[in-house]
Amino acid sequence: MEQIIYQPIGVIHTPFKESADAPAQGCFARDARGQVELYPEYSEGLKDIAGFSHLVLLYHFHRATGYELITKPILDKEKRGVFATRYFKRPNPIGFSIVKLFGVDGNRLDVGWVDMLDMTPLLDIKPYVSLFDARQDVCDGWFETASELIKYRNTPK
Amino acid sequence: MEQIIYQPIGVIHTPFKESADAPAQGCFARDARGQVELYPEYSEGLKDIAGFSHLVLLYHFHRATGYELITKPILDKEKRGVFATRYFKRPNPIGFSIVKLFGVDGNRLDVGWVDMLDMTPLLDIKPYVSLFDARQDVCDGWFETASELIKYRNTPK
Repeated sequence: MEQIIYQPIGVIHTPFKESADAPAQGCFARDARGQVELYPEYSEGLKDIAGFSHLVLLYHFHRATGYELITKPILDKEKRGVFATRYFKRPNPIGFSIVKLFGVDGNRLDVGWVDMLDMTPLLDIKPYVSLFDARQDVCDGWFETASELIKYRNTPK
Repeated sequence: MEQIIYQPIGVIHTPFKESADAPAQGCFARDARGQVELYPEYSEGLKDIAGFSHLVLLYHFHRATGYELITKPILDKEKRGVFATRYFKRPNPIGFSIVKLFGVDGNRLDVGWVDMLDMTPLLDIKPYVSLFDARQDVCDGWFETASELIKYRNTPK
């Protein structure tokens, strides 16, 4: 079986020590602040990053053990295929979050809207670019009718 | 050094046999169609995916050899830090694209806006969810003034 080997390039610090503390997605914890600590040998690659308001973080769900192809999402009462969810127990447990960038200090990024666990191994940082990434006319599948999301959308913020 | 090991869960078929053929991003090739072939043992995980109009694909840049922390993006004339670009020669060569989902046939997904090379190893499929992923009030850093992007934006489509 073909293997793909990656190495963490840093670590993400967040207020969430356990899964039970972490929000299902960053939009449910807009005040949550974290720090992306890039290992110093990669710092040069952060040139020009301060100009972006949002970043894509890819990271390893380090607490995931095994996976389920059919799973009950946190935000729904029905069982769903894992590729139709953002659940962390996936065949390749790679996490993907869009965070707000508040500041850069050397090899540390001050970020908001974090939803990952503290000490999560970082795999990649990419700039969020609205032309590429902010899609319109989107159909959100089962999320459109998920009761938890509807409650959230109707809550004044 | 800590290692993270993943295995491809499928392969992405596209019209782009060589880097020179592939668009810099999917938005530059809106007519490009491809097929995501999930290995059959994971097919069950596709339940409910047909309800989504857009998917996030994570994949391995299998032709990347090594990386550069400072690089000249295809879309710009200036050298940029690699984490401020979407260039494929990255410390962990993980690709991220948002594609349109046109149809599902067993373990095959018919998708559009593809920008990856033919036979790219697939790592993960996630639903694109507008509440989580479509951000507003975005500042696009150097992409805001990149001449190739400005030309593209001003071209009637």
